[in-house]
Order: sequence, then structure tokens, then C-alpha cells
Amino acid sequence: MTTVRLWTDAEVERNPRVKAVFDDIRATRKSDFVNNFWRALVNQPDLLERTWASIKQVMLTPGALDPLTKELIYIAVSTANSCSYCVHSHTAAARAKGMTDAQHAELLSIIGMASETNALANAMQIPVDPEFNVQS
Amino acid sequence: MTTVRLWTDAEVERNPRVKAVFDDIRATRKSDFVNNFWRALVNQPDLLERTWASIKQVMLTPGALDPLTKELIYIAVSTANSCSYCVHSHTAAARAKGMTDAQHAELLSIIGMASETNALANAMQIPVDPEFNVQS
Amino acid sequence: MTTVRLWTDAEVERNPRVKAVFDDIRATRKSDFVNNFWRALVNQPDLLERTWASIKQVMLTPGALDPLTKELIYIAVSTANSCSYCVHSHTAAARAKGMTDAQHAELLSIIGMASETNALANAMQIPVDPEFNVQS
Amino acid sequence: MTTVRLWTDAEVERNPRVKAVFDDIRATRKSDFVNNFWRALVNQPDLLERTWASIKQVMLTPGALDPLTKELIYIAVSTANSCSYCVHSHTAAARAKGMTDAQHAELLSIIGMASETNALANAMQIPVDPEFNVQS
Amino acid sequence: MTTVRLWTDAEVERNPRVKAVFDDIRATRKSDFVNNFWRALVNQPDLLERTWASIKQVMLTPGALDPLTKELIYIAVSTANSCSYCVHSHTAAARAKGMTDAQHAELLSIIGMASETNALANAMQIPVDPEFNVQS
Amino acid sequence: MTTVRLWTDAEVERNPRVKAVFDDIRATRKSDFVNNFWRALVNQPDLLERTWASIKQVMLTPGALDPLTKELIYIAVSTANSCSYCVHSHTAAARAKGMTDAQHAELLSIIGMASETNALANAMQIPVDPEFNVQS
Repeated sequence: MTTVRLWTDAEVERNPRVKAVFDDIRATRKSDFVNNFWRALVNQPDLLERTWASIKQVMLTPGALDPLTKELIYIAVSTANSCSYCVHSHTAAARAKGMTDAQHAELLSIIGMASETNALANAMQIPVDPEFNVQS
Repeated sequence: MTTVRLWTDAEVERNPRVKAVFDDIRATRKSDFVNNFWRALVNQPDLLERTWASIKQVMLTPGALDPLTKELIYIAVSTANSCSYCVHSHTAAARAKGMTDAQHAELLSIIGMASETNALANAMQIPVDPEFNVQS
Repeated sequence: MTTVRLWTDAEVERNPRVKAVFDDIRATRKSDFVNNFWRALVNQPDLLERTWASIKQVMLTPGALDPLTKELIYIAVSTANSCSYCVHSHTAAARAKGMTDAQHAELLSIIGMASETNALANAMQIPVDPEFNVQS
Repeated sequence: MTTVRLWTDAEVERNPRVKAVFDDIRATRKSDFVNNFWRALVNQPDLLERTWASIKQVMLTPGALDPLTKELIYIAVSTANSCSYCVHSHTAAARAKGMTDAQHAELLSIIGMASETNALANAMQIPVDPEFNVQS
Repeated sequence: MTTVRLWTDAEVERNPRVKAVFDDIRATRKSDFVNNFWRALVNQPDLLERTWASIKQVMLTPGALDPLTKELIYIAVSTANSCSYCVHSHTAAARAKGMTDAQHAELLSIIGMASETNALANAMQIPVDPEFNVQS
Repeated sequence: MTTVRLWTDAEVERNPRVKAVFDDIRATRKSDFVNNFWRALVNQPDLLERTWASIKQVMLTPGALDPLTKELIYIAVSTANSCSYCVHSHTAAARAKGMTDAQHAELLSIIGMASETNALANAMQIPVDPEFNVQS
């Protein structure tokens, strides 16, 4: 059950603005499969265009972090934000980019450990050590 | 202001059980500096010992992910959990492990992007695509 | 699957205290439909009465904000808190109060944008500008 | 204390790419004041440009929701995400756009009420009523 | 720095409606000290009255849980919600109601452990076992 | 749908390291039922062992808090963290340890109340009263 309608391929075909984004998603990913996130965003063409442009810039442009590391970070944030859909889609994406079971296992350990110490630090309201200051 | 007392080095010295953990922290990190998180945990020796043992296993044992990637993931979770202390301490740790400004910039972009799409997916309550299923 | 039992209309009818609240919900909303949230709260009559009284005061009493704006704010909070049920129920409520697709699209854009900059501000631990101070 | 350096006006002046964004912020807002969020983002020029462009599109382009309603929604999300900086900056922005004390009071009531019922719905794990389904 | 003004005792004295709540807070708690939360809520008299009435019913009326257990639960929720003010005020309240250092230590351990397993369960997206179903 | 595979009893039987943990879970809980959380963790034997050891120490070792109070705190954290699986499993665990309907009702009231005041305190950005300081 969703709060917006999911568009079918046939409906997308009839809307040139939306079709252009779907065509670019398929060409960029070299796959015909377009997942539900984009089929839901179609209801907001501005947001669809802006989100896809940002995803391309942030996740798909070569930069200082490799593509798999980026997906691991995405999974970590999605887990902490309790986004069920995003955890599923980005875990699948990480696997497609070569994430091994051993890497997934370590990722889970770090996410769990960080969540535990985050809670402890918040419960104890620890003051930040001046040694961590970056502003000189 | 904290909700528990922070122990000074002099106090730690007088408690052999706690001193053993602090000695191991200093030897493992090859540094005399022990940050406030551990000085606050001293009030719960069981928790202090268990947390340090877990941190050593998760963050400091060589494994499938390199030490810097682990810190980036830790920063991502800490940010999503709004843990001010943890964001400060792990950003400093990542810098100490070689994080460049360009890597930090990309990390921030991914954290921001993930938070935005997490919110969009939660607001639209998108059903998970069957293609993402791992269980065969 | 729930952690408490959902009461049927027949069960509610047999409990005068609970029936009074359901009668008021139906009369206030001018609809026979009572959604699952209230059928679950019935297990805690004190909480049922207090929650309905608060909802009536906060959401249904004419005040400084119009009813649709109130629902948009409710959706925004529910999304950020990852409450699937609440996102569904309040999106439906907003539509019933006249929310257009264009308004929903803008709401989603703002929720996404805010979530992104919230994460960026938390990751950078930005100090509050003194210009934002309200206390004179 | 921040995890990135805040740029001064003198430093911004010496960097044409960054200066262009600051000039546009000042021109758009008709004010010389540029708050710390942007001074921190300067360390990531790509992110600075993309974030400002998105903020302009989402928050400053006339659309289906009026500017004050947009700020109220922004405050609601920022509160639920525990972003101290964002709550301060957007409450100040809402006041600058005419938010009255009575409107602020109602906003707080709704944020509080939604947070309470979000928690109750999550604790009771209530199934979504089929009546809320949007997909026909 | 706050987003609303904190009222002084002198200002409260001049407003009979607000004064009545403060008088009841002082009489109920048998203490002259009224903490900042209430001094901030004064700006919204409706919310002030409703919040104090709810707190009295939920936290101060004898029921199925003892007062100290209630405060421990309050600290746990406040920590998970990253509410710095609430963690401080309710840890102080728990201490005033007799919380020992050993109890605080165990509370922290449970909050940390729950946060870790919450993250693990969310990252693995585990299906709920049918054995946990309450609806017969 | 999960992001990792759930192991059957037959698979667990063939892996001595994992079987040892399952045997201890069954012996400790005096029940043959092992819930999905552990069947998912099996993919990470290190994490499985460490998590079970921590759960035993934190939740099952007699200490300063009784077993039911511990479960109530666990439910509170799991609710605030929007962990659907954990809310279900720990509500079932609390019932198995004797939680009455009246206690559950009060627990829900406190979780709801705390979530509301957490949001209010975060929205008003209230400064911590010096009276709450623990460090002398």
C-alpha cells in the first residue's frame, strides 16, 4: 500500500518529460528494470528530475570514494533512519556492486556498534573533548 | 554538563579494573589521550569492559573493510542518530586515519542524499520490489 | 500483526465508557468509519479518552492554522518519525480535507529537502548564529 | 565546535565559484547576512551549489503552498530529526515571514501531538486500514 | 539559546492562568524549583495546561508501574529521541526518586543493547515470527 | 522479505559453531523456539556469538533491575527507534515475563508522553537547568 500511485511503463511512455528520465535511468544503469521508488516519484516530475540528477552526481560520478563504499554508507544511513524500502534497495545495489557476505557482516557489526555507542553517549550527555575541534 | 561523572586520570589510577582498560586503550591506540566517552563509561565497569572489547573487535581487527571505510560508516550512523559527541569523535578519528577533505565532502553528500530519499520513500510508503528479495 | 487486540464494533458496543468515545468520534467526523488506531487504543480507556480529547483540541478546534496546514505538518512529523500507519492515515486525512496532488508534491519536496539539510547540519555540527536568538 | 571550518567573508571573496553562490544568497534574500550553514558548506563547492539551487527551487519558488506554510513544515521535520541548528534557523525564518506567536503555539501542539501518536502507533504496530489505500 | 522566551517568576505572577499551573507544579512536587521546560511552555497556555495535566495523570498517579520505573522508561525514550534537555531532566528526576548508580548502569546497558539490536533487525529486515502475534 | 537469508534448523545442525549458540539459546530460555532474529544473525557467526553473549549479560543476569522492568525499557527504546520486529518480539517477551494489560497500558502512556515532551523540548530548544548538573 502506498500514499501515491505507482506508474506503469505504459503510462510513463505517454508522458515525454517523465519518459526522458526513465530512459536515462535505463541507459545509465544498463538495465531495463526501474524500481518502484522512481515509479512513485513520477507523480512529482520536478522532484523526479531533481532527485535523479542528484543521485547521478552523488552516487554515479567517479570521485574520492569508490562506488561500493558509497552504497555501504547509504545502507548505514537508511538503517538508522528506519527506511525499510531503502535498506532493501541499497543492500541489493551493494550486492550488485560486489559486496561480499563478509563485507555485509562487518557493515552490520559497525552499524550495530555505532547505534549502541550513539545511545550511550546521548544517555550520558558527554561533553565534546576540545581535542576534536577542527576550527583553528 | 553530563548525566554521569567524568573520571580523572588520578581516579582511574586508583581502580585496578578500570585502569586495565585505560592501559589497553592507550597501548592499542599508541596515544596517551583518552577521550571523555571512556571517562564517562568508567562509572559502569561491566559496560566499559564490554564496550571496549567490542570496539576492538569491530573497528580495530583487520577484516573485509578497511579502517577508514569503517569510520565513514560510523560517522554516517552517528549523524542519522543525531549523536553530537559521536559525530565529533569519529570525524576526528577518520581524519586521523587519513580522510581527505574530498572524501569528507563526498561522505556528507551521500549522507544528505540518503536522508532525503529515506524521507521520500517513507512519505510515499513504497512497496519493496520483489527483485530485491534475497531469500531464494 | 499488532501487539494489542483490535476491538470490533460489537465489543465496543458492550463497553459504555469506550462506546462514548467512539460515538463522539463518529459524530465529530460525520462518518461511521473508525480507523484501527482507535480500535487498538480501546485496550487503554484512559489513554483513549485523553488522546481523543487532545486530538480534538489540537487538530479540530479552529485556531491560527487552517485544518489542511495542520495535516501537512502531521504528515511531515510522521514521516520523519518513520510511522508507517500515521503517514497513511494522515495522508488520507489531508486528501479528505482538500490536499491537491500539487500540494502533496511540494510537501514531499520540503520533507526531503529538510531531511537532507538536517543531516548536513548534524554532520557538520554547525554552531547556531547569534542572530537567531529570540531571548532579548 | 564544528567538524568543518566556517569560512569568513574575506575568504569567500577570494574564491569566485563560492562567491557567486554567496552573492546569489544575498541578492535573493535581500540581506547581507549569510548564516553559518552556508559558511560550513563552502568546504564542498559542489554540495554548496546543489543545496542552494534546491533550496531556491523548493522553498523560494511560488507554488501550491505559501512560504510560511513551507517554513512550518521545515520546522516540524527539523524537530523530529533533532537538528538543533535547523530548528533555530527555520524558526527565525518563519518569524521573518510573519509567523505569529499563536501560530507557533499551534505548530508546537501539532508537533507534540503527532510525536505522541506516532509513538503509540509504532508501539501497538497497528495494521493500515484498507480504506487508506490510494492505488486503485 | 531557545526559540521561545523563558518566563521569570515575576512575569508568571502577573498572569493568573499561568500562575495557577505553576502553583500546582510547586504544590504537587513539594518544591519551589520550576524547571525551564515549564517556563518555555508558558508562551502557549493551552499547551502548558494540557501538558501538565497529562504529566500528572501519566507520571504522578499511582498505577501499575512504580514511579522510578516510569522515570527509567522516560529516560530510555528521551535518549532514543536525542532530546538532550529531557535526558538531563529525567535522569535528575530518577535520581531524586532513588535511582542508584547500579540501576543507572543497567539502564544504560539496556538502552545501548536495544539500540544495537534495533539497528541489526532494521538492517536485516527480519520478518516478524507468527509466534509473536497477539490477535487470536 | 529480508536482506539476509534465514537459516533453518537443519542448516544450523550442520554448523557446529552456530549450533553451539542455538543450543545455549534453547537451554537458557528452556524452549525449543528460536526466533528469526537469531536465524538471520547466523550469517555473521562473530556477531551472533557476541550479540547472544551481550544479551545474556545485560538481560538475563540478575542485577539491580528486575527482568520485567528490563523488557519494558527495551520496548520503549525499540518503539522510539521504529524497529517493528523488536517491538513485536520484546512485547511478547514482556508478556511471557508477566506484563499485565494494565502495565502495558501505562507503558504506552509513558512512551507517548515522553515522545510528545521530547518533541516540545527539541522544538523550543530549552537550555538545561544548572540544577540538573551531576558533576560537582
